[in-house]
Amino acid sequence: MKTLTVSLGERSYPIHIGDRLLGQADLIRPHISGHQVMLVSNETIAPLYLDKLMSSLDGLDVATTILPDGEQYKTLDTANTIFTRLLEQRHNRSTTLIGLGGGVVGDITGFAAACYQRGVAFIQLPTTLLAQVDSSVGGKTGVNHPLGKNMIGAFYQPQVVIADTSTLNTLDDRQLSAGIAEVIKYGLIRDAEFFDWLENNIEALLERDQAALTHAILRSCQNKAEVVAADEREGGQRALLNLGHTFGHAIETGMGYGSWLHGEAVATGMLMAAELSERCNMLERSHVERIRELLVRARLPVTPPAEISPEQFLELMSVDKKNIAGLLRLILLEDIGQSVITDSFSHEHLVSMLNDFQQV
Amino acid sequence: MKTLTVSLGERSYPIHIGDRLLGQADLIRPHISGHQVMLVSNETIAPLYLDKLMSSLDGLDVATTILPDGEQYKTLDTANTIFTRLLEQRHNRSTTLIGLGGGVVGDITGFAAACYQRGVAFIQLPTTLLAQVDSSVGGKTGVNHPLGKNMIGAFYQPQVVIADTSTLNTLDDRQLSAGIAEVIKYGLIRDAEFFDWLENNIEALLERDQAALTHAILRSCQNKAEVVAADEREGGQRALLNLGHTFGHAIETGMGYGSWLHGEAVATGMLMAAELSERCNMLERSHVERIRELLVRARLPVTPPAEISPEQFLELMSVDKKNIAGLLRLILLEDIGQSVITDSFSHEHLVSMLNDFQQV
Repeated sequence: MKTLTVSLGERSYPIHIGDRLLGQADLIRPHISGHQVMLVSNETIAPLYLDKLMSSLDGLDVATTILPDGEQYKTLDTANTIFTRLLEQRHNRSTTLIGLGGGVVGDITGFAAACYQRGVAFIQLPTTLLAQVDSSVGGKTGVNHPLGKNMIGAFYQPQVVIADTSTLNTLDDRQLSAGIAEVIKYGLIRDAEFFDWLENNIEALLERDQAALTHAILRSCQNKAEVVAADEREGGQRALLNLGHTFGHAIETGMGYGSWLHGEAVATGMLMAAELSERCNMLERSHVERIRELLVRARLPVTPPAEISPEQFLELMSVDKKNIAGLLRLILLEDIGQSVITDSFSHEHLVSMLNDFQQV
Repeated sequence: MKTLTVSLGERSYPIHIGDRLLGQADLIRPHISGHQVMLVSNETIAPLYLDKLMSSLDGLDVATTILPDGEQYKTLDTANTIFTRLLEQRHNRSTTLIGLGGGVVGDITGFAAACYQRGVAFIQLPTTLLAQVDSSVGGKTGVNHPLGKNMIGAFYQPQVVIADTSTLNTLDDRQLSAGIAEVIKYGLIRDAEFFDWLENNIEALLERDQAALTHAILRSCQNKAEVVAADEREGGQRALLNLGHTFGHAIETGMGYGSWLHGEAVATGMLMAAELSERCNMLERSHVERIRELLVRARLPVTPPAEISPEQFLELMSVDKKNIAGLLRLILLEDIGQSVITDSFSHEHLVSMLNDFQQV
């Protein structure tokens, strides 16, 4: 087992990464201060891991909320389902909410914990690669609105994150690849050495080699933790974590939540950002090709959906959170492992990039 | 005009109190950093003050959300109405939400600001005495759930609070008295001198004497600001501000939101707390009578509704936020101006107090 501490002063918390951790009571119990626990999971994950987890919670007053599975349920209404359960079960301020599942479960559970009685304790048990490397670090919680993804939420830190790598054995191939997209992102934005490692180990990850997965998760979490520790509320450098996300969110919103997986949309979005960077003379052509090749080897999509026209892309991007006061800011690449946040790219390059993808 | 600063480190903010402040652009403009503003008010307040306020916002991109008036609309659905308006108007992270109205408008607007894109700027313009002395200080925002009041929310600080005392001229008598209940609370919990002043000036407040109102608001805000500055997230002493609220919330929930005004329920709740304190040999009988007399002179109710039985009271109080891990904690009085938070009162005294009120 590897342990990493996210340094955020009094809100610091540990991330434990390793094989078969869900059944280890000593990892979770020190972080539960009251006797009430609300365990939130979904219909896919609960049958697989709920029993194992319950053995770690023996003696506590544990209630469960089992949500339907899917991004389309990441809504304010679903959060309200959790509030209703908490109130029906008379959970007070000393309750602990535990999110067992992927990013959707984690985001909703964290948001519910942030808002219930203005904030109760929260523990995150991510069971997808995407959630283990990305949404479990950084305190971003929230739900979607029909008019925009993650538009309602809170910055809220968990007490502990436990990433049990054995849960990835039941993850389907498409979800695994979607998680790898975010892993690749860390190489691209700030860790060239890790990108090299990924080029050499991508097949091992796809084959779910436990050592390779553990290394990839640890390195991704370290990278993210360093960025978040320096910039908890996304004023500056933290925005680099959004590489590919502005384009990716446009794809997800345009296609309807749940059609493309988040990581798939981000993968395509990262290549779009790389292509735009190349047009702006920031990034060498050969680097764009290295990125495309790694994404393809990771079995990720590298072409935006033909259903979304360049005009729709521009429209969809203008309501994105990263759009400050009308000026569109994007994360672009200067090198593999070197990224910048900028609004100084020409509109023509953006449009030409979108048009070129449209004609693929 | 009087100005008070609430000291919360980087989240410190000023409270301006005085006559006809809504039209003074120089008070509000320095706190609006972007060009987008979402002004939230209700159907009662907007016709009275919206035009005056708009003159202070000249040149900005101002959208409005006008809510129906009433505590029954303080819901997650209403908060979602604001999110929808913000997204339809394409408001980004640099938008500023302004809440113009009473406590309900302030609480919902603050909660919407806390959650929209995980937090945007918020300005509070309270137009009731209750909101001016209480809900505009301390950062408590939120909405009700059918199973409990203020159960969904966030601690979130405004950029500035502007309490325009001239807005109290249009407040109906019942609302004015409800606000005075919270003013009296500050005297009771920590400011005996202020309680004496209130005994001498209660008629002036009821006659809306501007000098008396300004003094009462300032002194209340000072008291609350001192408590909040020492304990922002309600770990300890801040709980004293809840004098009368556990009983009061039970009345509000039991009677259905909007039937009793919050301040009315708190007034009765404070007398119930005083009566319980007397039974516990903490408070002299003569002090209970002074409290009852001042509340009656302020035209506030001092008897809980007969519809709620002692058993229902106990039931309703057990889901209150102040109930920690099954142990009911209450704010009791040792003297006028001296309060304690305690769970060391006998259940028998609590029940006998409830029974005695039932037989009034």
